[in-house]
Amino acid sequence: FHVSARTLATHALSIFGDHSDVMTARTTGFALLASSSVQEAQDMAMIAHMSTLKARVPFLHFFDGFRTSHEVNKVDLLFDEDVRTLIDEELVKAHRERALNPDNPVLRGSAQNPDAFFQAREACNGFYMAVPGTVRDSMARFEKLTGRRYGLFDYSGAPDAERVLVQMGSGVGASHEAVNRLVTEGQKVGLVTVRLYRPFDAQAFVDVLPKTVRAIAAMDRTKEPGAIGEPLYQDVVTALAEAWPDGKAVPKVIGGRYGLSSKEYTPAMAKAALDELTAAKPKRHFTVGIVDDVTHLSLKWDEEFDTEAKGVTRAIFYGLGADGTVGATKNTVKIIGENTPLHAQGYFVYDSKKSGAITVSHLRFGPKPIESTYLIRQADFVACHQFEFMEKLDVLALARNGATFLLNSPYGPNEVWGKLPRETQEQILAKKLKFYVVDALAVAKQAGLAGRINTVTQACFFAISGILPREEAIEKIKEAIRKTYGKRGDTVLNRNFAAVDASLAALREVKVPARADSLLTRRPIVPRAAPDFVQRVTAMMMDGKGDLLPVSAMPVDGTFPTATTQWEKRSIALEIPIWDPKVCTQCAICPLACPHAAIRMNVFSPDEMKRAPSTFKAVPWSRKDGGPLDGMLYSLQVAPEDCTGCGICVDVCPSRSKEVVKHKAINMAPKLEHLEEERANYEFFLSLPEVRPSFDTIDGLRGSQLRQPLFEYSGACTGCGETPYLKLLSQLYGDRLMIANATGCSSIYGGNLPTTPWAKNADGQGPTWANSLFEDNA
Amino acid sequence: FHVSARTLATHALSIFGDHSDVMTARTTGFALLASSSVQEAQDMAMIAHMSTLKARVPFLHFFDGFRTSHEVNKVDLLFDEDVRTLIDEELVKAHRERALNPDNPVLRGSAQNPDAFFQAREACNGFYMAVPGTVRDSMARFEKLTGRRYGLFDYSGAPDAERVLVQMGSGVGASHEAVNRLVTEGQKVGLVTVRLYRPFDAQAFVDVLPKTVRAIAAMDRTKEPGAIGEPLYQDVVTALAEAWPDGKAVPKVIGGRYGLSSKEYTPAMAKAALDELTAAKPKRHFTVGIVDDVTHLSLKWDEEFDTEAKGVTRAIFYGLGADGTVGATKNTVKIIGENTPLHAQGYFVYDSKKSGAITVSHLRFGPKPIESTYLIRQADFVACHQFEFMEKLDVLALARNGATFLLNSPYGPNEVWGKLPRETQEQILAKKLKFYVVDALAVAKQAGLAGRINTVTQACFFAISGILPREEAIEKIKEAIRKTYGKRGDTVLNRNFAAVDASLAALREVKVPARADSLLTRRPIVPRAAPDFVQRVTAMMMDGKGDLLPVSAMPVDGTFPTATTQWEKRSIALEIPIWDPKVCTQCAICPLACPHAAIRMNVFSPDEMKRAPSTFKAVPWSRKDGGPLDGMLYSLQVAPEDCTGCGICVDVCPSRSKEVVKHKAINMAPKLEHLEEERANYEFFLSLPEVRPSFDTIDGLRGSQLRQPLFEYSGACTGCGETPYLKLLSQLYGDRLMIANATGCSSIYGGNLPTTPWAKNADGQGPTWANSLFEDNA
Repeated sequence: FHVSARTLATHALSIFGDHSDVMTARTTGFALLASSSVQEAQDMAMIAHMSTLKARVPFLHFFDGFRTSHEVNKVDLLFDEDVRTLIDEELVKAHRERALNPDNPVLRGSAQNPDAFFQAREACNGFYMAVPGTVRDSMARFEKLTGRRYGLFDYSGAPDAERVLVQMGSGVGASHEAVNRLVTEGQKVGLVTVRLYRPFDAQAFVDVLPKTVRAIAAMDRTKEPGAIGEPLYQDVVTALAEAWPDGKAVPKVIGGRYGLSSKEYTPAMAKAALDELTAAKPKRHFTVGIVDDVTHLSLKWDEEFDTEAKGVTRAIFYGLGADGTVGATKNTVKIIGENTPLHAQGYFVYDSKKSGAITVSHLRFGPKPIESTYLIRQADFVACHQFEFMEKLDVLALARNGATFLLNSPYGPNEVWGKLPRETQEQILAKKLKFYVVDALAVAKQAGLAGRINTVTQACFFAISGILPREEAIEKIKEAIRKTYGKRGDTVLNRNFAAVDASLAALREVKVPARADSLLTRRPIVPRAAPDFVQRVTAMMMDGKGDLLPVSAMPVDGTFPTATTQWEKRSIALEIPIWDPKVCTQCAICPLACPHAAIRMNVFSPDEMKRAPSTFKAVPWSRKDGGPLDGMLYSLQVAPEDCTGCGICVDVCPSRSKEVVKHKAINMAPKLEHLEEERANYEFFLSLPEVRPSFDTIDGLRGSQLRQPLFEYSGACTGCGETPYLKLLSQLYGDRLMIANATGCSSIYGGNLPTTPWAKNADGQGPTWANSLFEDNA
Repeated sequence: FHVSARTLATHALSIFGDHSDVMTARTTGFALLASSSVQEAQDMAMIAHMSTLKARVPFLHFFDGFRTSHEVNKVDLLFDEDVRTLIDEELVKAHRERALNPDNPVLRGSAQNPDAFFQAREACNGFYMAVPGTVRDSMARFEKLTGRRYGLFDYSGAPDAERVLVQMGSGVGASHEAVNRLVTEGQKVGLVTVRLYRPFDAQAFVDVLPKTVRAIAAMDRTKEPGAIGEPLYQDVVTALAEAWPDGKAVPKVIGGRYGLSSKEYTPAMAKAALDELTAAKPKRHFTVGIVDDVTHLSLKWDEEFDTEAKGVTRAIFYGLGADGTVGATKNTVKIIGENTPLHAQGYFVYDSKKSGAITVSHLRFGPKPIESTYLIRQADFVACHQFEFMEKLDVLALARNGATFLLNSPYGPNEVWGKLPRETQEQILAKKLKFYVVDALAVAKQAGLAGRINTVTQACFFAISGILPREEAIEKIKEAIRKTYGKRGDTVLNRNFAAVDASLAALREVKVPARADSLLTRRPIVPRAAPDFVQRVTAMMMDGKGDLLPVSAMPVDGTFPTATTQWEKRSIALEIPIWDPKVCTQCAICPLACPHAAIRMNVFSPDEMKRAPSTFKAVPWSRKDGGPLDGMLYSLQVAPEDCTGCGICVDVCPSRSKEVVKHKAINMAPKLEHLEEERANYEFFLSLPEVRPSFDTIDGLRGSQLRQPLFEYSGACTGCGETPYLKLLSQLYGDRLMIANATGCSSIYGGNLPTTPWAKNADGQGPTWANSLFEDNA
């Protein structure tokens, strides 16, 4: 099995990486082999196959979820011939002959009793004892062929080290950088990389340790509450107890947790762990990478400790999920990695909201292999592919002094300065940034590649980043285009070449004025009206500053307040639906179908119109049945900042204008043109009293859409097919509903669950009544 | 959660007990609390509830599967008032208020990202840190109420012990007996019982250890191949590394595996572990309870080391699954435990074949609490409730010298001696046994309790075991009968009283002759014709001697040969079906319905009859279609020793005699009357060539039943409803079939799977052809 190790759900689920899943598998008897880089993920896969065929023990080879599985890096490839050389065909044949097969019928999976089970269980011992030797042999044969040397455990650092880290997985990259730096500073430190974690060969582990070691920090990327310590820590302690030479003082061992759920792990944190080993009474169990202000287990680390190699160019790109930024930056890594002698690395940060989320691409380029398994903190180049981010994100926070800033802007070099928030202006001045703009949308459109802004921004990046000489860089892009589109004929090829040339022509350096004079400032992340928890916690996460939240900010048992998405206002739509009351039949299908509760209808007294904004639209309620709604007004309203622009509402609208072609009762229109007025309109709309038809007399579909959806603005993907059902349930069952999310989609978590307290019935027997209601009706 | 710990399936499944399931749960963050006796299973359940409400950490309280979960023992009960006293209602209320509930809607089970997950994961630390203190408090309050004192870890043994066992679960009982005995002999040994295993309080563990300890054996009832050692071992090593006083030499720790899948663990084995600690180079990792002649990890133990307390009466009862023996012996434990000051213990050994298996009940009675958590090795009383066992089992192997032997025998005191195998006669003489017989079947029938032999044998046990004075014992049985049947009226009561009196009247002591003179000898377990594996391995298990099999006898990967049940000949039927060809219409329904392939039909040439036994029956094949079977003979034959006597064949037979009432084409008749001749007839029947209609022309139901069933004599329960389908599939698809047993019933495992090699088709493309056949047809 080759698996990217991911976080097990505990107080919350996480789609990100640590070793908690692999660690629960350590009781299975699988051999566990760890890779700590992209190169190793390939190499250990090979070694795992070589070894399992010989050993007859199943292998689980793992590498860090996201940090390794989603990193792009330049590697030495193994080819089919290599695989054929390394795999013994006789072992494959023997393996196949052991398969369950009618040619040679055998019984497996029997039931055994106290008389025989234990003896049979011990019959596999010899196979396990042989595994370390088998893996060592595989590694030796692998080295002979490829020149790449691996051991069961590998030591690096000072030969007379007194303080040593023990680690496996991607954290090794960061720790290795830290150890290298500290050794050059004369510190006696080292690092043991664990490769064969199970079976754990205690003697082999002790053998790689310098016998000068006084103290060890075992670094675990997992957490096992209730254990004396995490698994690698206990293994290190046990290995020393078993195999450390008699008569020499056994090194002190402390255990550290780091990197849970892909939490950043940097060389500075590795240094913090090594520093802790110098303490007279080091923390026996610590964490690093967070601020634990409750149980005070966390170590402080020095943000300034920087081990990035000289000669490496670091670039950061801000984009919107599904806008092509990640694809283009991956492509950039490939172009440079495959076509130049340079090494290249790409890593891409996005949250679990998938499409519509902010993406940040971290790219490094340099002459030597890049093992910096952490995010860029000082970028030479920053690109922002969405102008809107300027008003909400601190895009330039990671730009180093003198860096280059490329902004995709609808405003030209002379206009753009005044459109930037004052904070951004100040950063550009303080950091003395080179500032370029390009109107990528316009260039792409003109070149016949409408919407493909990534081609434009990529060309601009190559032109100004300085990684390659400009002419050579342009040539490489065109080569890549030729490879990708060559088969599609000259028209397509030429259109792409033209786009590249046009991009360079449209790229403009901005003459940066001497002072910041903008009247705009960055918007607060959430309105001041938001509740305390949202202000303190949710807003920090939305602002990309969740890493700064201390332990005390977090709920002790994973319990979060509901109704928080209403404060998020992701504002990711480019176009939003605009209502044409003249065509509308008030059928209620658009609010029903909206996956995000972002288009709504209501019925209200004409009196309310007195306080409505002037652009707010309403028409008489169309159903005249003498009921309580007779004579009232009807309105259909979009939530402009919660709408994702998916267009489903327009797709499902059954009413077409008889006068205008392709004109429906709602029609997509550019958001920016309508944002101000619809924001005000929606605010007024929300202030209208809710019409609440009783459950028994609910007027079918239309009645349901008059009720407040309690599952609103979910974090689901744009146009998600799952959420409208949850929303409708919340409207039908209202505050009597507890939503159990069985869809398995992490994007839907964090949606807006019931906010109003339980509405008890006349008997005050809310829960019983509701349970039976729910069982009967849902 | 309160769970009986059971074995996880590895090379084989096992329904028996060890800690392998619980140990995989140790990564979950549950608190783990271990009980080591029946009394503790109650007490720790209480302490777990008290603690979890306070701690807000979920508790998994476990006790050993079978050894504790299925032991009957006298305990001090907790009553409802005690529970009310010990449980804090405020905590229950708080717990309920944290429930997911529409009154107070919250979000749980959210998705968290690298920015916040780690901090949130650390927010529970304080709760875990508080658990040991909380459990200690619960234990203190429990002791105050009940007087029963428990600690997180409890030490017993010499205050200046140098060698110590660490253990949890039922093994503690046996180890405790061993330590007590050795301490009285002046040895400096001790035992730490682990109760709160998670969170593991390293300081609390070290605190209970005498500081004189030089060496520790951590005893694990689980196996984790690939780990340096088993979990409790690694925990002990780590706890010492963290908390052993500075400046004092840390005790050497070794780790032992024992008791996997309920393997016997005795005081002698505990002594073996303690003895190993005296070695200059003790085995760092050992096993005890088996003979490991492959990797040589096992310790030898002294079979003669006996710690059973004086004044304890030990009784063993042999019965057949579902014959009432286990029920009656459990009842005996209750009668004595509840109605006398004596302590009583019952444990019941049966294999996973359920009904029809041999059961052995182990009962102890004595003046003090009984903590002997192992089988009886020297019985004062042996009862055999099935006369048939005498010919196949060594029933008297565990009888001590001078013990009492009660045999349920159809033969009276004067006849029985000659009906015993010579080996049994010799044992009776050598051990100077008191020998009693009773014809329990006859007594029960006469008393109007047909088949209830357990009432009879129970009365006889009380009369002659000497546990209570005879008159008092009879009075206690009658009291118990009054309690059980009082509500059913005087008739039932009197019938039971009469049965008791009649039992005593029918009980006869046998005058044991001076010498063994029987011409009978015990039958070999399997015929000499059985294959090597069956002779060496299977036969040992069938003979109840599987414990003696060394590791080398077992397959390394759980692969067993098929077709072994044919050698087992369980012979458990009291009645078998006898064929009446005059009534039979040759419909083939009886062989189809037989769950054990124990009644079969075949068609053969009249020539074959020349070599048939004289009692073998055959009639002309009834279907005359000019086909190849025209003019052949038909026979229906029972496998008398494989038949379980379930009677399904007779139930489904549609042909009734027109002359004799209730007479069908097959009719159940006492097996013993027909065994000899039908055994010979079946042997001849099996020698007949198989008629193998080709798959395409198979003659429906009748054709299928002419083919050999390859799933035969399964270990399923008598009359099992699942097996006929598997059998029919094997007949339809024959050797092209691989049976995947998805029924989940362990009784069916070990059935007779395909034995003949794959029959390739003309193209030699067996597997492909068969796979598609299987997909198309099955």
